[in-house]
Amino acid sequence: MQLSIGKALVMGGAVLGVAVAAASCENKAEQKGPQAASGALGASASLKQLMDSRGLSEADVEAAVKTYVPGGKGDEYMIFASGGHSGQVLVIGVPSMRLLKVIGVFSPEPWQGYGYGGESDKVLAAGAQNGKKISWADVHHPNLSETKGDYDGQFLFVNDKANGRVAVVDLTDFVTKQIVPNPLVASDHGGAFVDPNTEYVIETSQYPAPLGRAYEPLSEYKNKYRGVAMFWKFDRQKGRIDVEKSFAVELPPYTQDLADAGKLGSDGWAFINSFNTEMAIGGTLEGKPPIESGASKNDMDYLHVINWKKAEQLVKDGKATTIKGMKVLPLKVSGEEGVLTLVGEPKSPHGCDVTPDGTAVVVGGKLDTHATVYDFAKMKALIDQKKFEGKDDYGVPIMNFKEAIRGQVEIGLGPLHTVFDDKGFAYTSVFIESVVAKWSLKDMKTVEKLPVHYNIGHIMAAEGDTVSPDGKYVVAMNKMSMDRFSKVGPLYPQNFQLVDTTGDQMRILIDAPIGIGEPHYSQMIKIDKLKPISAYKPGENPYTGHVDPNAVLKEKDAKIVRNGTTVDVYMTAIRSHFVPDQIEVNEGDTVNIHLTSLESAEDQVHGFALNMYNVNVSLEPGKHENISFKADVPGVFPFFCTEFCSALHLEMAGYFLVKPK
Amino acid sequence: MQLSIGKALVMGGAVLGVAVAAASCENKAEQKGPQAASGALGASASLKQLMDSRGLSEADVEAAVKTYVPGGKGDEYMIFASGGHSGQVLVIGVPSMRLLKVIGVFSPEPWQGYGYGGESDKVLAAGAQNGKKISWADVHHPNLSETKGDYDGQFLFVNDKANGRVAVVDLTDFVTKQIVPNPLVASDHGGAFVDPNTEYVIETSQYPAPLGRAYEPLSEYKNKYRGVAMFWKFDRQKGRIDVEKSFAVELPPYTQDLADAGKLGSDGWAFINSFNTEMAIGGTLEGKPPIESGASKNDMDYLHVINWKKAEQLVKDGKATTIKGMKVLPLKVSGEEGVLTLVGEPKSPHGCDVTPDGTAVVVGGKLDTHATVYDFAKMKALIDQKKFEGKDDYGVPIMNFKEAIRGQVEIGLGPLHTVFDDKGFAYTSVFIESVVAKWSLKDMKTVEKLPVHYNIGHIMAAEGDTVSPDGKYVVAMNKMSMDRFSKVGPLYPQNFQLVDTTGDQMRILIDAPIGIGEPHYSQMIKIDKLKPISAYKPGENPYTGHVDPNAVLKEKDAKIVRNGTTVDVYMTAIRSHFVPDQIEVNEGDTVNIHLTSLESAEDQVHGFALNMYNVNVSLEPGKHENISFKADVPGVFPFFCTEFCSALHLEMAGYFLVKPK
Repeated sequence: MQLSIGKALVMGGAVLGVAVAAASCENKAEQKGPQAASGALGASASLKQLMDSRGLSEADVEAAVKTYVPGGKGDEYMIFASGGHSGQVLVIGVPSMRLLKVIGVFSPEPWQGYGYGGESDKVLAAGAQNGKKISWADVHHPNLSETKGDYDGQFLFVNDKANGRVAVVDLTDFVTKQIVPNPLVASDHGGAFVDPNTEYVIETSQYPAPLGRAYEPLSEYKNKYRGVAMFWKFDRQKGRIDVEKSFAVELPPYTQDLADAGKLGSDGWAFINSFNTEMAIGGTLEGKPPIESGASKNDMDYLHVINWKKAEQLVKDGKATTIKGMKVLPLKVSGEEGVLTLVGEPKSPHGCDVTPDGTAVVVGGKLDTHATVYDFAKMKALIDQKKFEGKDDYGVPIMNFKEAIRGQVEIGLGPLHTVFDDKGFAYTSVFIESVVAKWSLKDMKTVEKLPVHYNIGHIMAAEGDTVSPDGKYVVAMNKMSMDRFSKVGPLYPQNFQLVDTTGDQMRILIDAPIGIGEPHYSQMIKIDKLKPISAYKPGENPYTGHVDPNAVLKEKDAKIVRNGTTVDVYMTAIRSHFVPDQIEVNEGDTVNIHLTSLESAEDQVHGFALNMYNVNVSLEPGKHENISFKADVPGVFPFFCTEFCSALHLEMAGYFLVKPK
Repeated sequence: MQLSIGKALVMGGAVLGVAVAAASCENKAEQKGPQAASGALGASASLKQLMDSRGLSEADVEAAVKTYVPGGKGDEYMIFASGGHSGQVLVIGVPSMRLLKVIGVFSPEPWQGYGYGGESDKVLAAGAQNGKKISWADVHHPNLSETKGDYDGQFLFVNDKANGRVAVVDLTDFVTKQIVPNPLVASDHGGAFVDPNTEYVIETSQYPAPLGRAYEPLSEYKNKYRGVAMFWKFDRQKGRIDVEKSFAVELPPYTQDLADAGKLGSDGWAFINSFNTEMAIGGTLEGKPPIESGASKNDMDYLHVINWKKAEQLVKDGKATTIKGMKVLPLKVSGEEGVLTLVGEPKSPHGCDVTPDGTAVVVGGKLDTHATVYDFAKMKALIDQKKFEGKDDYGVPIMNFKEAIRGQVEIGLGPLHTVFDDKGFAYTSVFIESVVAKWSLKDMKTVEKLPVHYNIGHIMAAEGDTVSPDGKYVVAMNKMSMDRFSKVGPLYPQNFQLVDTTGDQMRILIDAPIGIGEPHYSQMIKIDKLKPISAYKPGENPYTGHVDPNAVLKEKDAKIVRNGTTVDVYMTAIRSHFVPDQIEVNEGDTVNIHLTSLESAEDQVHGFALNMYNVNVSLEPGKHENISFKADVPGVFPFFCTEFCSALHLEMAGYFLVKPK
């Protein structure tokens, strides 16, 4: 992989005098300091010299030129990455790999005023489980909304493994609009996945538990513990999940893992891999084997094949029972009616990825050396013919492994997830071997392995989960970064490596540290599919999409209205003052601040922070916020605009006084 | 600024065939899609072609090569940036400008397990004001600890403008160890600044209020509202602020703004600029002028000159009063004893920056066109000679402006902050004009202006606040980014622009979007000054620095101990299981989980999440955590490792059962 740079390459006198002086500082600064180095190389030099002074190879230069995005030019793609246990979503540009935004989703985020006294509090409050407020999540799998199997750039869905929840992010303003708690399960993993037209957001459970989370001793694991596949009905018009129209399919207590929805010919079907069909529950304190070994005994676990269109019909036909207010199709019914069918999966299965043409499902194996390719047509035929080799203890029919697969691909030790390009190649992440394995869907042969740094978990490709992947880029989502970046203490960043897949050989272009959360999965969409707004309608409440009834559209309409111990403040914000800027209440009063930004210009953002009261909202142009709190601490408290909104931004302030009883 | 690349530059056949095919996709994808484009340009091409295909100029290529840091090579400098109203600190590498870490400081951060049931809860709880838990901050000014006026890489201090607090971050593990609430003020701004040997962390108030925050009507503003300069004593041995040994200096109700500590010859002194000596309090609802105009009437506000060494002595001598348990040197004493002296500052002053040699203080003016350079020797002489032109209404002596200054520099409209290089140049951020102005400290003439994008607030230079700045890099911290990046909704990222200052002309190398919080100030330190650890001592509690008394150093020592309704779980974590992995308690029990990571390898991190209980801690190698909560919800709840710690990480789980009453 050589790329020769002739001596003839002279990078203009003056400029390169500078360039090289600058670059050489990095080598010489230790001994001599920048001054000594400056101009050391005279007034003219070559790119080669600049490369030498920075210790860059020719491949580095090419990678630099391929990933550099000048200010004023946007990126080509946008990545939406799960923030893992940060509870958030990370937005990253490609090819620059710059973090463009952290979207507050499950965890409060004060910069966005998300969860600090304003309207967004309702979104977070709706995410309570068992009546308990939960202020974090373990976000695993983001999925973009699709139309006809292609990303449409309208919505993003993510799941919370730790608390069994799903969130809806609106991509017109990049704001989280809804969090839906699952009333049945205590964790999820396979989700959030959408069907090709986003009729449903699919969430499948991970660690089995009694449905509804009622107490049952572990001795009842096999009898009373269960998994579920949730089908959350998505109302695209409202941009919200419609809980009433949603339903669940009960599953055996095999630890369900990852899921994917069928597409094209397999639309109407869903697939979930699983592990721990041994139903191991550990017991390490008593000297029993931990789950990691207990769950690795069987040579085969089960791929779950779900006919969700049929499940939907059966639920309509009244075949569902109701648990915690949620319609659940019982396991018995699913087994009998062909809604759920199982087929073997080798050696600690992981990953479950439907090919772009919808004809196959690829499953890895953490302790296997193969990726197994299941043929949908074969499985469909076996199910239609009721040709099974038996049933499990829950009455679920089991297909014959060999009859259900298209074949197995020799990959390497520990294949996990698989993504696809536009040329018929698949790319599988191989954790133990720390490589990306490229293989041909056509002949199911591995053609190349690219070492990555280090311990790749998920892998992602440009528009890779659609019916028409773009190819060009793959991102290795590496779990460890040891020696890749400057040290920032014992908690290391993850490492996204952008891989150029356009050539005969894969090439790593850039290492991108992820210094917040542990991304699991992510998706990459072409920039031009996104149509974000730059301002809200005057007085718009982003959570209703309408002008708020309490909006104050003119400064002259600002007022303070007292009713007994309730004080309603109708307030405006515009460069660089608030009306009113003096508010006095009595200790114990309930205070409602109805605050509208009168700005309309792009990027002209204000904030409203009320000192000591844990109140902070962000006011993008046109936005209206309703803030409510009890004035329970007497004294003098400033409020101010948290944004550097003008030269006199520090003067955009006022006083909130609470008169003691 | 041309840099010519000769045709002779051929970047090796095969590779560049790839390179160009890849690059050309970006142009052609829209019309034809990647396939059409691939290989379109054949098997060989030049860097020039790659540049053309990506629309890069030669300056872009040079910038790309100067900022690209290959994986496996660290950055040269590290930026510690305030996270603004995210409440956190951002760690960024230079020259790559990659975000390496978001450090949880004032806001809970679940990835780091910061504020989710473990030991760190105590740090956040200590930050309560008026007995109220506060879960965010408006972080403005980070300051690195110094020894003899140079960064020593040991600690970072930041202030919270919204709630009057200061935090201490330990740079051995990049963890927040202490949050100290200021009992006197309702907001701060000038801080956290350290003196040259970090004896004190200095925090100065912003919006005046009655000291101790007691209620006083706004009509009492002039009589009862005050500012303060807090001098928090730092105990370097303990790595904590010693509140007992700290003191405050009472200030007039002029809105104090930014502060800086003297160095070398001016060590022992502190300087604070101010605005709103008019003491305007708005009244917009009653049609009175807002503060932005009320505070802009006077031609001059006051630079505050504080002899803190003398203040320290007077406090020792018992001249301080006590408010809310804090020693406060009264304004009257400060005025009489020469602790506080004032001198005029033109036109809405902003910024307050001591030159590296300690001989001068530079102050900008938001509505001025000059930066004013105050001469410390002249001011010291006037103070020693008691040569004043009068006193303010609070009895504070005022120096003559002309007698106190070295001169004024014609900068441009709206100069704010000033930083310094190693060659005698100063760089001032100019907000309204949106430029960086470079000027000579020697002859006080502006030599160059660089347009930035857009509306620069703070500016920062490599080791720029030390007695020996490095030069080489300046960072323009721009407040607006309008058209600089791909759109992410109405809330735009800030824009850090890395500026190369080594040449005859300044050059912007790269735009870095800041997609979380609004950074105010930041500091940049040479990487080799930082000595972060990669693991804790076995069983170490990071908040005590010692092996925790409840640490479990061997799996065989794991146990569950019940005493009445209290259950103590002594637990271990190592790839890939917990001991114990089954915990059953009764509804209402108090549960204490004492959890130790038995790992020691670099980057081998585990997590512990307890579903539905809002419990989540991060377990870096060796770390011990103590978790306490009430088991108030009956049912079955999994717990699991939140990190992808091994191929079988999903199996690193267990069950927490709560038996109903």
